[in-house]
Amino acid sequence: MLFADAVTPSLAANSPVLALDLGGTHLRTAVVSADGVIGARDRRRTLTVRGADAVMADCADSLRQITQQHLAAGGQRPTALGISAPGPLDPFRGVFQDPPNLGRSFWELPIVDHLSSVLGVPATLERDTQVAILGERAFGAGIGVNDLVYVTVSTGIGGAVISGGTLMRGPDGVAGELGHIAVDMNGPVCGCGGRGHLERMTSGTGMARSGMDALEAGLDAPELARIAANIAPSPLEAHHVYDAAAAGDPTARRIIDTAIHAFAAAAVSIVDIFNPQRIIVGGGIALAWGEALLGPARDLVAKTAFRVARERVSIVPASLGDDVGLIGALPLVRLALSGRSTQAHPEFASAVTA
Amino acid sequence: MLFADAVTPSLAANSPVLALDLGGTHLRTAVVSADGVIGARDRRRTLTVRGADAVMADCADSLRQITQQHLAAGGQRPTALGISAPGPLDPFRGVFQDPPNLGRSFWELPIVDHLSSVLGVPATLERDTQVAILGERAFGAGIGVNDLVYVTVSTGIGGAVISGGTLMRGPDGVAGELGHIAVDMNGPVCGCGGRGHLERMTSGTGMARSGMDALEAGLDAPELARIAANIAPSPLEAHHVYDAAAAGDPTARRIIDTAIHAFAAAAVSIVDIFNPQRIIVGGGIALAWGEALLGPARDLVAKTAFRVARERVSIVPASLGDDVGLIGALPLVRLALSGRSTQAHPEFASAVTA
Repeated sequence: MLFADAVTPSLAANSPVLALDLGGTHLRTAVVSADGVIGARDRRRTLTVRGADAVMADCADSLRQITQQHLAAGGQRPTALGISAPGPLDPFRGVFQDPPNLGRSFWELPIVDHLSSVLGVPATLERDTQVAILGERAFGAGIGVNDLVYVTVSTGIGGAVISGGTLMRGPDGVAGELGHIAVDMNGPVCGCGGRGHLERMTSGTGMARSGMDALEAGLDAPELARIAANIAPSPLEAHHVYDAAAAGDPTARRIIDTAIHAFAAAAVSIVDIFNPQRIIVGGGIALAWGEALLGPARDLVAKTAFRVARERVSIVPASLGDDVGLIGALPLVRLALSGRSTQAHPEFASAVTA
Repeated sequence: MLFADAVTPSLAANSPVLALDLGGTHLRTAVVSADGVIGARDRRRTLTVRGADAVMADCADSLRQITQQHLAAGGQRPTALGISAPGPLDPFRGVFQDPPNLGRSFWELPIVDHLSSVLGVPATLERDTQVAILGERAFGAGIGVNDLVYVTVSTGIGGAVISGGTLMRGPDGVAGELGHIAVDMNGPVCGCGGRGHLERMTSGTGMARSGMDALEAGLDAPELARIAANIAPSPLEAHHVYDAAAAGDPTARRIIDTAIHAFAAAAVSIVDIFNPQRIIVGGGIALAWGEALLGPARDLVAKTAFRVARERVSIVPASLGDDVGLIGALPLVRLALSGRSTQAHPEFASAVTA
């Protein structure tokens, strides 16, 4: 049975939904109204070390708690649950694949089936970046835009694409992984094994790795070495490399410049590949760096992308911040209700119609 | 008035169509039956030096000639014209933009309007690679595949994408330009101004350019130098570089290896971005090199693309050869008739209903 069969669209169109944004460090939950406003909400640490079962129990507990708060305040009962989680995952079966950020106990976990059964609402699952692009398009920086690309620059780099108004998913639901555009085919090895992928060059993890590699190689990096000694035994993070660059460290400067250049080169590829009206850039590093990241990308696009495509596109910051994974649950549930794509697991859908 | 309004779909579903494949060196025309079989056909040199008006007159003359042959043989009257041409072009208005391979007199030429008026049939225009992917999907290597990528490796490198069964076009119809994925952000400058784009690394023009640059730079290229001296004053072409590499020239070998590696790196990007079921590779160089080009791409995809995506995809040669631009006119016309995308210019559509 399709997700859409479990809830009547007319009801769902005016009902609030439950949202779960399951990240590697925190899980957030919220009740989201039919006009995209967050009501009752909760936030807990994701205790991945305790394993998937414990985390699932935490999610269910948090969702029950905010539902009770919401109902106690006179709110209408939420009709469905939208889940945002790190990829790779299978949105069609509602199952995790092998998400590196969540750990082994989550592999092949049927989260949609599980939470739906426990909570008695139909649920639907998508990759965090897919939920983000749906959220930004419904209520953020992409309202009314039919050809839209979302890129998150954070610990890792993820992406999502809406082309001609349709969320691009591919037969396995893993389409849109823009972090793995190879921008430097002879460059350093990415976590995935490829060389010079955008994620290796411009993500927080990638820049920290480059900083550590530079120190190990004995490159001229006095400020970076000083910071590394100060924070030992903690490892370098991307913001340390950024600070060292700002303080004039030549090697740190080269790492940061390379990261910015790699992002700009990828932006040109994205413009020529998708001819988008807008590219929305979210994530912690994009937020922290702002125009230092987006400005050079706009410049290189203006200089080298196809004329028609570069005249069309704008490159803008995301506007929903950390709440995008919650707010996006609303358009995600609506997409599932439309029956065109996401569907819940058949076994629990009947539980909800009762 | 939409293209779809000019022809009744029931009629068109069983009627032959006229096809025009307008290339930089040759123009081909054909009558294509409703089951994709080519009947009467013609091929002429594209005399771009004589300007767009003369070429348009040649196109019309050729199309009239094959129509007469087709009718004289008892064939049913073609109901529409599908045009394949080099990009960039505007498929929604049926107008060329600034195609470098056709010359200045073609810029902004309303080819759909013109040929439709002259011939009295509705017409529709798409970029050659878009027509190719439609043709391969309808009658070639992509039958029944809903998530499909087409790459042509030839004088230049072009691409096209069908995602979830829909041809990706973007708001300006220029989406799918996979030749401009940056695979080496510090690499040589592409015709578009970007650095290390796939087209600069793996196209015929790009490899010839690398060969000439290597000779000018005085690199160790004895066999390449010998060939260049032999063919002077004609310039080096890609097949000369390939031959020199085969004869053991170290610099030519490096250029060819780099071209193959660049294609493989781009293939990984394509797999991670689109999660396609199939990648079809066409074009003269792909045809000539065969497994020497496709094998390393398959290997790198198997090693470094996302697990689910790499297990899904197959990378195969195109199967329709030079006729793809003609055969593809049939699904192109049908796409236009469906009213979902391509449309002809309003002014001439009424001429056809009479």
